[in-house]
Amino acid sequence: MDPMLRIETGLNMVFARAQAPSGPQLLGAAMRHAVFPGGARVRARLCLAVAHACGDDDQAAADAASVAIELLHCASLVHDDLPCFDDAATRRGRPSVHAAYGAPLAVLAGDALIVLAFQALAWGTLATPMRLGPLLLTIGQAVGMPGGIIAGQAWESEPNADLSVYQRAKTGALFAAATIAGAAAAGAQVQPWRRLGEALGEAYQVADDLLDAVGNAQTTDKPVGRDNALNRPSAVRAYGVQGALALLESLAKAASESIPDCPGAVPLRALIAQEARRLVPKSLAQAAA
Amino acid sequence: MDPMLRIETGLNMVFARAQAPSGPQLLGAAMRHAVFPGGARVRARLCLAVAHACGDDDQAAADAASVAIELLHCASLVHDDLPCFDDAATRRGRPSVHAAYGAPLAVLAGDALIVLAFQALAWGTLATPMRLGPLLLTIGQAVGMPGGIIAGQAWESEPNADLSVYQRAKTGALFAAATIAGAAAAGAQVQPWRRLGEALGEAYQVADDLLDAVGNAQTTDKPVGRDNALNRPSAVRAYGVQGALALLESLAKAASESIPDCPGAVPLRALIAQEARRLVPKSLAQAAA
Repeated sequence: MDPMLRIETGLNMVFARAQAPSGPQLLGAAMRHAVFPGGARVRARLCLAVAHACGDDDQAAADAASVAIELLHCASLVHDDLPCFDDAATRRGRPSVHAAYGAPLAVLAGDALIVLAFQALAWGTLATPMRLGPLLLTIGQAVGMPGGIIAGQAWESEPNADLSVYQRAKTGALFAAATIAGAAAAGAQVQPWRRLGEALGEAYQVADDLLDAVGNAQTTDKPVGRDNALNRPSAVRAYGVQGALALLESLAKAASESIPDCPGAVPLRALIAQEARRLVPKSLAQAAA
Repeated sequence: MDPMLRIETGLNMVFARAQAPSGPQLLGAAMRHAVFPGGARVRARLCLAVAHACGDDDQAAADAASVAIELLHCASLVHDDLPCFDDAATRRGRPSVHAAYGAPLAVLAGDALIVLAFQALAWGTLATPMRLGPLLLTIGQAVGMPGGIIAGQAWESEPNADLSVYQRAKTGALFAAATIAGAAAAGAQVQPWRRLGEALGEAYQVADDLLDAVGNAQTTDKPVGRDNALNRPSAVRAYGVQGALALLESLAKAASESIPDCPGAVPLRALIAQEARRLVPKSLAQAAA
């Protein structure tokens, strides 16, 4: 099955389990709004791509891992957009969850999506329960304290934040979990896959900083200059636009070179090259052409 | 080991795993503020009491279940206190988490506590991994959609909420999970334990409604009359103070009578009788004496 179809099917299946006529309908709608239609689902695709490269002997577990990672990513966006953080009125070209449903339901939608992610792992490993613990711990570490995406967001409230520590937690951790969980879901050794996720996570963070600095109305989710206005750590503020572009290129190369020898290495390298091109803001790609 | 000591030790152990000098210190402090010093830890004690009544053959799993339930309860309090919900400045006689650390860290502390709860389950079942899935699904159902405590809170945003559906989700679900998870952690049949948790959950909700209506400066966590001011469903609004008191008494009796035949039935009944006395607001208990 096509990876995007697997992801959308998997997401719809967990929503079908979570949503019943007996439950509060507005919360259900707010949760759906946060997840559908999605963005590039890049973390979930990365997870499935690694599982595929490792033989994908347990598709239900791989699907569950990719769905859990996507739900946790969506939950973090919902909470990041709240008035007390970015106060973002739009996301992916539509009203953000709090703009559409109010802050209370946005808080609860994020909470419920976190819970649903862990439930998805348990549902997806009913036939292979020995894989649940390693998947839960891998993904939990990427989300919670001290180094997951929630910790990453919390660095914005700290008086002194180190740029690399902040970015590794805010973005890198869930990418690393995507590759590691993909391997774990397929029963493969996980350690060789960590560097791939870390390098891609750094690349995405740098790309996000570039988007914030130079803008790209077609693809960016947030107003230009917000990182600067909020005094946030940023690769562009640290290295300038050209320096950040060079960093992005070297990270994509490191990601590609980190892929261990495996049957699925060639299509995985192609996916990474395609993503690396997509990451460069269009205005900069045109300027360089 | 004394149940309260087991719970505090278990909570401290998961915090030790989650908090590292490398992580954001303010988030760590906000999380601790939410959990220590605790309240009566009644859900966690209930979970351990049922595990004990069922033989408690896997203390690590029972400890993990009780810790997870307590962390999820604390997370829900942190988010319920946020300005967009109750806007409560105090909790358990101290500043609420958002009052002490600001709304951003309060949102993130709740999020991180939810994640930590699921991690706790995985850590506590490393030696008995077949118990992880059932525990996760039991507890996940009690927290998420469509009928868990997050769904319960969301009913406050619905135009039409049924009092019993709302209370079953808002309070009853986590109590039912406490008894079911206690049995599951001990490898016992879970179904006979559901009614106990449900009845106690209803009793706590009614007691909370009474506290809100008549007040009890020594024990209540919130300003008197808030449910009424916020137009919330409440047993006192539905049945009056005397009706709610009678309901509370009958629920405590139902809880006690629901306990299945087991070696630990006698101490468990004593615990419930003690809790039932504690639940009646002091002003009403004195009036009745």
